[in-house]
Amino acid sequence: MELHRFYSSLAIRNDRKIVVLLIDGLGGLSHEDYGYKTELEYANHPNLDRLASRGATGMLTPVLPGVTPGSGPAHLALFGVDPITFNIGRGVLEALGIDMVPDPTDVLARGNFCTVDDQGVIIDRRAGRISTHTSEERLSLLRDIRVPGCDIELHAVRDHRFVLRLRGTDLDGDIDNTDPGTVGAKPMRAVALNPRAEATASLVNAFVDQALDRLKGPSAANALVLRGFSMLPNIPSFHELYGLRSAALAIYPMYKGLARAVGMDILNSGDDFTDQLRTLETHWEGYDYFFIHYKYTDSCGEDGNFLSKVNHIETLDSLIGPLVSLEPAVLAVTGDHSTPAALKSHSWHPVPLLLVSSTCRRDGSTAFTESVCARGGLGALESKYLMGLLLAHALRLEKFGA
Amino acid sequence: MELHRFYSSLAIRNDRKIVVLLIDGLGGLSHEDYGYKTELEYANHPNLDRLASRGATGMLTPVLPGVTPGSGPAHLALFGVDPITFNIGRGVLEALGIDMVPDPTDVLARGNFCTVDDQGVIIDRRAGRISTHTSEERLSLLRDIRVPGCDIELHAVRDHRFVLRLRGTDLDGDIDNTDPGTVGAKPMRAVALNPRAEATASLVNAFVDQALDRLKGPSAANALVLRGFSMLPNIPSFHELYGLRSAALAIYPMYKGLARAVGMDILNSGDDFTDQLRTLETHWEGYDYFFIHYKYTDSCGEDGNFLSKVNHIETLDSLIGPLVSLEPAVLAVTGDHSTPAALKSHSWHPVPLLLVSSTCRRDGSTAFTESVCARGGLGALESKYLMGLLLAHALRLEKFGA
Repeated sequence: MELHRFYSSLAIRNDRKIVVLLIDGLGGLSHEDYGYKTELEYANHPNLDRLASRGATGMLTPVLPGVTPGSGPAHLALFGVDPITFNIGRGVLEALGIDMVPDPTDVLARGNFCTVDDQGVIIDRRAGRISTHTSEERLSLLRDIRVPGCDIELHAVRDHRFVLRLRGTDLDGDIDNTDPGTVGAKPMRAVALNPRAEATASLVNAFVDQALDRLKGPSAANALVLRGFSMLPNIPSFHELYGLRSAALAIYPMYKGLARAVGMDILNSGDDFTDQLRTLETHWEGYDYFFIHYKYTDSCGEDGNFLSKVNHIETLDSLIGPLVSLEPAVLAVTGDHSTPAALKSHSWHPVPLLLVSSTCRRDGSTAFTESVCARGGLGALESKYLMGLLLAHALRLEKFGA
Repeated sequence: MELHRFYSSLAIRNDRKIVVLLIDGLGGLSHEDYGYKTELEYANHPNLDRLASRGATGMLTPVLPGVTPGSGPAHLALFGVDPITFNIGRGVLEALGIDMVPDPTDVLARGNFCTVDDQGVIIDRRAGRISTHTSEERLSLLRDIRVPGCDIELHAVRDHRFVLRLRGTDLDGDIDNTDPGTVGAKPMRAVALNPRAEATASLVNAFVDQALDRLKGPSAANALVLRGFSMLPNIPSFHELYGLRSAALAIYPMYKGLARAVGMDILNSGDDFTDQLRTLETHWEGYDYFFIHYKYTDSCGEDGNFLSKVNHIETLDSLIGPLVSLEPAVLAVTGDHSTPAALKSHSWHPVPLLLVSSTCRRDGSTAFTESVCARGGLGALESKYLMGLLLAHALRLEKFGA
């Protein structure tokens, strides 16, 4: 049985509230410039430490040991969905991120405008990072392209990025990228990765042929490539599965999209963490489960800026008072994955987890750091099991078996 | 491959003895009245601590993170059987508990006598907790009920409880409870949960119709409800799988039944732990694997009595001398699940595990507590892997692969 359906089979309802504070890219890596401490070990975060001493800690492995996750699998796992079985493709993720509501029969792809030379060879994969406005203008050239067998929609995202949506019956998204992923090569033909997707690949090629023809000319955006062909995974909502009225407090579109994939309401959360917590207070009575997404730690990690990541951890720590004051029945603080400044990228390292609840077995943790969490009483577990732990600590799972 | 068959494929025989001392409901929860210690952390158990210093510790997750197990899944897991694939239904469990030996083709259900009013609405779900004797008298009114298509047996359990056994061919136990689970409702019709069980559901209803007719009248036990329809899971015996001559030393029927489900001999173990250890000494040469079930810790946890659970842990500790003196090649001390006094129920919290063997990698554990075990060298593992660890430490598993 799928994990979420197993947990669902045990779910019962009550009024205990669950809050997940997700610090994006939280996990770090020992940095030789900072006494071989991680960002979290180097930062001062007395409030998180105090929470640790009232709860229990552990370590989450986002997907499997050694596997560095993208945001999609990392979040789905935290939402209790097996991230290998239910991967969300880039196309669907982009669509969700711009507030599209795809149908399960749609195929979605992420499109990039690019610049090609006279031979059709890509010389700039981002078309000089044209503005969203220019991108809109170029898309308007393509909107009346007709391909018998499906309807086509094009949606600008940001800069040179857009979403291609194919609507029809019997479409299949198992199609390889047309993006060669490098300059010096031509955009590729869409190729079906299994026989069922051959018809859809033909539709894509019919569209691309016409589009490339129309885009020819002096514009920097004189070609396009597609990648991340995908369809919406069939994931039931938190409400269907667990009877949870759930809400996401995220600022960036992608995280809103991921939360929407499991049926969360997306609340207007302002521009920063203080705004997010204000939204939390406002909507406190209306929901059972809140997902708060804190982005900045990940961005600093990607930039390789150790001290900036430290600062953002300290800022978050200084601001969590209102969240703690709401006294959720279960509060989890964790990350979706590690983004060590030392690596300037997502990584596979396990992510510290802190759980605070009256039903926690206190484990003597006195700080919230990787080294403490690695010895914590919750042990090491895959992220996909967090949902079960949250429900259990909220007394929302009944006994399994007689 | 099923886990037990995988371990079985590696099993070899020798004369090294394995003892599992199962302390029911062993795991506890930090209790604010006792310095946020658990029962095991609060108790004095110098003998268990001494064993810990000679062995290695770890933590067992009974089923999956967050999942609170009933006794059935919790024990099957400790016996090396995946508890999700091979769940034992309540009907089978009750039957095993009263020394019945069901056939794999039987359907079993737990029955309760109840009291209904003139309209057939349940007003007492336990029929005033009639005596087992009264229950027997009421069952005798039903024993000559005949239903074409199966043989029917009725066995008294205790008080208002009995077991219904359907014997026949092509029976299927996937049938919903007739017990509405509440007063103020009528007993329900038996409904098949899949098409294969429809014929069996009809047989059940044919029996129930006649039974309700015969039970009418002034007795408190003037109706019955059924639940936990189930069939024996198809689990090979320890002897078939591992060549282990195995014996259970349990006092309560249900645990004898669970041990019988994996083919253990059930030894007459007297009335208390001292009797159980005496039985162990008597039968020491006759078996390779002993399962000793210590019940009282669970009962105190269910009662919410922290100090009584502490006392029972201390009592056990003071009495284990004879067990240690037998010097089993492998001794495991653990629980089937947690039953924290703070929750007055089974819980999902991992269970401390202590393994003592000359083949243990000593991990520096100096005590047997949740906080020590959470940092122990055996790490955190699902209970279903314990069987493999026991066999391995007894050098009863050969190398896998070339």
